[in-house]
Amino acid sequence: MTPPLHDAHPAGHGRRLPDTQQGMRRRNLARVMHTVSAEGPLSRAAVAARIDLTRAAVSTLVDELIRWELLEELGPERPGRVGRPGSALAISGHGPAGIGAEVGVDHLAVCSVDLRGVVRARAVRHGTNRGRPPQPVLAELTALIRQVVAEGEREGLWPAGLAVAVPGLVARDARTVVRAPNLDWHDLDLGPLLPGEPPLTVDNEANFGSLAELWLGDDTPRDFLHVSAEIGIGGAVVVDGRLLRGTRGFAGELGHVPVDPEGPRCACGGRGCLEQYAGEEAVLRAAGLTPGEDSVGQLAERAARGETDVCRALGGAGTALGIALTGAVNLLDPEAVVLGGALAALAPWLLPSLERELARRTAGTACAVAVSRLGSEGPLLGAAHSVVRTVLDDPAAVAERT
Amino acid sequence: MTPPLHDAHPAGHGRRLPDTQQGMRRRNLARVMHTVSAEGPLSRAAVAARIDLTRAAVSTLVDELIRWELLEELGPERPGRVGRPGSALAISGHGPAGIGAEVGVDHLAVCSVDLRGVVRARAVRHGTNRGRPPQPVLAELTALIRQVVAEGEREGLWPAGLAVAVPGLVARDARTVVRAPNLDWHDLDLGPLLPGEPPLTVDNEANFGSLAELWLGDDTPRDFLHVSAEIGIGGAVVVDGRLLRGTRGFAGELGHVPVDPEGPRCACGGRGCLEQYAGEEAVLRAAGLTPGEDSVGQLAERAARGETDVCRALGGAGTALGIALTGAVNLLDPEAVVLGGALAALAPWLLPSLERELARRTAGTACAVAVSRLGSEGPLLGAAHSVVRTVLDDPAAVAERT
Repeated sequence: MTPPLHDAHPAGHGRRLPDTQQGMRRRNLARVMHTVSAEGPLSRAAVAARIDLTRAAVSTLVDELIRWELLEELGPERPGRVGRPGSALAISGHGPAGIGAEVGVDHLAVCSVDLRGVVRARAVRHGTNRGRPPQPVLAELTALIRQVVAEGEREGLWPAGLAVAVPGLVARDARTVVRAPNLDWHDLDLGPLLPGEPPLTVDNEANFGSLAELWLGDDTPRDFLHVSAEIGIGGAVVVDGRLLRGTRGFAGELGHVPVDPEGPRCACGGRGCLEQYAGEEAVLRAAGLTPGEDSVGQLAERAARGETDVCRALGGAGTALGIALTGAVNLLDPEAVVLGGALAALAPWLLPSLERELARRTAGTACAVAVSRLGSEGPLLGAAHSVVRTVLDDPAAVAERT
Repeated sequence: MTPPLHDAHPAGHGRRLPDTQQGMRRRNLARVMHTVSAEGPLSRAAVAARIDLTRAAVSTLVDELIRWELLEELGPERPGRVGRPGSALAISGHGPAGIGAEVGVDHLAVCSVDLRGVVRARAVRHGTNRGRPPQPVLAELTALIRQVVAEGEREGLWPAGLAVAVPGLVARDARTVVRAPNLDWHDLDLGPLLPGEPPLTVDNEANFGSLAELWLGDDTPRDFLHVSAEIGIGGAVVVDGRLLRGTRGFAGELGHVPVDPEGPRCACGGRGCLEQYAGEEAVLRAAGLTPGEDSVGQLAERAARGETDVCRALGGAGTALGIALTGAVNLLDPEAVVLGGALAALAPWLLPSLERELARRTAGTACAVAVSRLGSEGPLLGAAHSVVRTVLDDPAAVAERT
């Protein structure tokens, strides 16, 4: 009766299973998978205790999951315990895998992650994609995907889904890039330009980055605002462990929150948007530098050397972030703000002014600011793991496809 | 497996029922109630068709709901149809009722609403509560509540719950007013100061106003941002038909979103908050007027007469609202912004500048701005209806209490 509000996968994955006997069985299969994934290896009895089902009921579910190659038995538990030793269950290291891909402004990347969460293959191509037509870019991405899938197949993995992170707004069909200004892509359905199999999900890179933070971060709370940057500023809102998507899928656009209503004009049509103060180009300009390869690395290196202009530029970006985040914290009341992507690498020089600004404007309602450990790896990992979560959330659906 | 994200009632009402046979029966009782509430009067067969259960299963549920006095039979359906006439079912006009109460800065109000949504009794007391200690204010509110409950009892109604709207931040315990600056109340548990029965829920007035909009408004979308004003500016975020509460229950604080980072100091500790431009006191000051009784009525009257200072002050408030809403629309991507409370009455003079500002800053991602039909009635009605929804959402829980 209560559908999920913000699916990790807008296009039908992660849906609420129907409220029937059959739906209940599928949910219980998912509960077994999630329990073993979070706490395994575990015996059947331990799983039964954790999810409050009888040992017999769990055994039936487990046998099915083993037949589908989603769980495996590790052999008898360590001896010395009282009673008949049970066989420990673990998530399978072969069978379905999640394929994550990323179209960055300056690179393409693909990886595969097995159900245990282990990265099993990777492929990267550096070089700018700015202003290139989508066809050759996505042909190159397809070649990288095929390479990663082939590597997996040699190890007994098959692709359960493909999730692609893009630096732009994605429609709720989870296929169409509505606007990716830094690539100059508009209203582009990626479906026909990527492999027909496995099933495709396209999403904004900040969304996948925030999911990676949620699933893989250290003590990430279930309510947080994720802020990241590559060329532009991305944001994502996670509420009670789910991504807030918005009516059109555009939620989290922190980069165009007004910081100063009479500030510089922005390409979006507004004035004084956060990107005009804290986007990569604005920071480079304020620091007196010109954009080049690995601009973020350059900024970090120069700031670490104490170059005054660079430190001042990053301090100004931190202040602007603090003002924009004040509005966001007032609206959303998150438990934390998490800085990811390039912002994680620049955090030492952004945080002092950012935290000062946020604290003085949100007295009594302030929230913690944390720095992502995943940094610019977040979107790619989040994409691959989103496929893995789909399998854990409804293992029967994957079994039906084999 | 999927708990609801943002309950209408944070303190345990509207909870997800357990995934068991018993939970399924309770959910089906709720589905029958909601179906008859939305589309009744309906025959048993019509209910069965709509919720995809057998006629026999529905009859068992309906018999129970009739025994609990939550449904009633209207007698045979209109003749002339083929087959044996069924008896039409309707929501009962007696039995449990929702009691809504409002602590305004300038008034107290209480009403009762039956399960059909009909307002059955009302009581209001005008006069300022600003700076008064909470005890006498809540003693007066208690007297009004007792009066409304007694009126209902004479008509066969009993109070299923009491929901109190307050102009301030409420903790997630749904009892404690953390901060109501315009009343000067702080960290105040309302529980001991109100009648011990029926069960109590306290919430921010803008939250109840937004729920009223959702449940009673004309074509209100399921994703919207509700903005209201009395003395301060209130806001509430509704995502997929549910209120976004935030970690501490403070979400929706649009009044303290920065509009101009170097603007006037605000009592919150910030600078240039929206309330400094669009709050009642700021608008009166900009119009050259002093606060008094029914300031909003005064503003509307003078604006309607075309008084230049008043029109200019309201136009400025609209511009500030447009800037603050730009940030909110970018973050949340709602389907609409709904202006409620005093803003609804002033909409003719706020909307032109508000919409202009929002449109030029959110080119391509703009969202519609609508004006609430409920206006300042919203919070009180939302409070009473929130109790009614609790009954519809889990009728068995109410039956257990009788």
